[in-house]
Amino acid sequence: METLSRMLRVHPRAKETPVAHIGDALDALSACIQICTSCADACISEEHVHQLRRCIRTDLDCADVCTATARILSRQSDAISELVRQQLHACVIACQACAEECQTHAKMHEHCRICAETCRHCQEACNRMLGEISSSGTIPAESFESVTTLP
Amino acid sequence: METLSRMLRVHPRAKETPVAHIGDALDALSACIQICTSCADACISEEHVHQLRRCIRTDLDCADVCTATARILSRQSDAISELVRQQLHACVIACQACAEECQTHAKMHEHCRICAETCRHCQEACNRMLGEISSSGTIPAESFESVTTLP
Amino acid sequence: METLSRMLRVHPRAKETPVAHIGDALDALSACIQICTSCADACISEEHVHQLRRCIRTDLDCADVCTATARILSRQSDAISELVRQQLHACVIACQACAEECQTHAKMHEHCRICAETCRHCQEACNRMLGEISSSGTIPAESFESVTTLP
Amino acid sequence: METLSRMLRVHPRAKETPVAHIGDALDALSACIQICTSCADACISEEHVHQLRRCIRTDLDCADVCTATARILSRQSDAISELVRQQLHACVIACQACAEECQTHAKMHEHCRICAETCRHCQEACNRMLGEISSSGTIPAESFESVTTLP
Repeated sequence: METLSRMLRVHPRAKETPVAHIGDALDALSACIQICTSCADACISEEHVHQLRRCIRTDLDCADVCTATARILSRQSDAISELVRQQLHACVIACQACAEECQTHAKMHEHCRICAETCRHCQEACNRMLGEISSSGTIPAESFESVTTLP
Repeated sequence: METLSRMLRVHPRAKETPVAHIGDALDALSACIQICTSCADACISEEHVHQLRRCIRTDLDCADVCTATARILSRQSDAISELVRQQLHACVIACQACAEECQTHAKMHEHCRICAETCRHCQEACNRMLGEISSSGTIPAESFESVTTLP
Repeated sequence: METLSRMLRVHPRAKETPVAHIGDALDALSACIQICTSCADACISEEHVHQLRRCIRTDLDCADVCTATARILSRQSDAISELVRQQLHACVIACQACAEECQTHAKMHEHCRICAETCRHCQEACNRMLGEISSSGTIPAESFESVTTLP
Repeated sequence: METLSRMLRVHPRAKETPVAHIGDALDALSACIQICTSCADACISEEHVHQLRRCIRTDLDCADVCTATARILSRQSDAISELVRQQLHACVIACQACAEECQTHAKMHEHCRICAETCRHCQEACNRMLGEISSSGTIPAESFESVTTLP
């Protein structure tokens, strides 16, 4: 969003923060919040809702985690780097889990297909942000290979 | 957002709900949440932050009310009409109050000018939604003339 | 909560705001957010989830509206009285709608029985707050008789 | 909260999840959300608000992260263990950062003293949850030694 980019640039402390990808990440997070909230509601309305329980759960979790992440990223003053990094990390995992679950219903339900795509896009935007703020560049790949279910 | 419009149309109960303005309202709410959160943080970072106390408050309130409103509007299944109406009503008031307060700082702070404009746009979008779902068409004008401060 | 009452009293502007019932309302809102979020998830896990679609919706809406209401009520600085009033009004309607829907499943599902009770309690606490801040004392009874479904 | 414990026990999948500390963690998160939101507002109202900028930021971040964490923890169905773990991890860092910042103002402002105490309690409750769900027992100590500021 153009307005958002302008907003980020006029912040009194804009020069001190790495804003290059923040705008993209915030746009992706906004879209993901809306689409996940909508997908959960669409799943609840499907005839075979009992097959979509896990999808509803991952949708709701993803919307909640993205909401917190977007609020923290929007703040350019005095960020706690370790918090930004961990919250982005949680967000990447939430987006990945939701994308994977929605993908399994993508052929049956168009809303799940759109949601999977939107979550993947958000996951990538958050990963780019992580790469930008993290000295190590990226978060360890092994963290993402084991998206398992409790218990 | 194009993706969001597609999402609203593929909802299993899309035909039953008045979707004409929902997409516009959700886009306006998303933008308002981001801009208000950012404006609050920019105000906190200004040298004369003590002059912006009320603005920070209206920014934070507006972001919170818009967040609830967007989540409710995103759901197309079994909406409680009276709740949608009242939450939109609260949102219109929050946007108006924030726009008015930000406007008083618009010449001094560009972030307040952008925020005032974004809130006005969101207020209008919510008002159109209200007009669409309400049999009475619009909410009473007198509700908006008395945006007063407690206590 | 005792800690919360202390917190409300040490606010620099505590004397200016009507704090008598704020603590009770915030406690009731906190409980309602947790219980509604939990009830929605319990409903999703029930074998006959398709009979609980509307209940999941009212649970999620109620949690979202209560979250915004609690955040606004927690702020004692420069409140916009008309916004506080309308947000409380929306909250009363959300709690009532959720209580009514959960009540219809109360004999079958203990989580719905607990949720109905918690929503009623929150509805009453918000209504008392409304009475306290409103010059007219209470909101019109007719607003609550027509909790109807869209469309 | 007694009602919450009952609620967690009547969930259809209660037996499958490690509920021992969930109730305590949810209570601590609820309190932390309220107290942090209130502390931010109290800081904004202080005469020397410019000395409390960083405190307002950590308060707002902590409330947002705790909100997402509480919502995810409230759900007992099909949890993604890696997400729960990472979100709790982010929450521990948010609580620690807010507690440390508030502690520096504790002698001057009673609301900051209460907030520091509440955040510490929440940090401990989330750490206990982490220990319970994590096979490794605890999260690495070095993650918490470097709560540094961006940039």
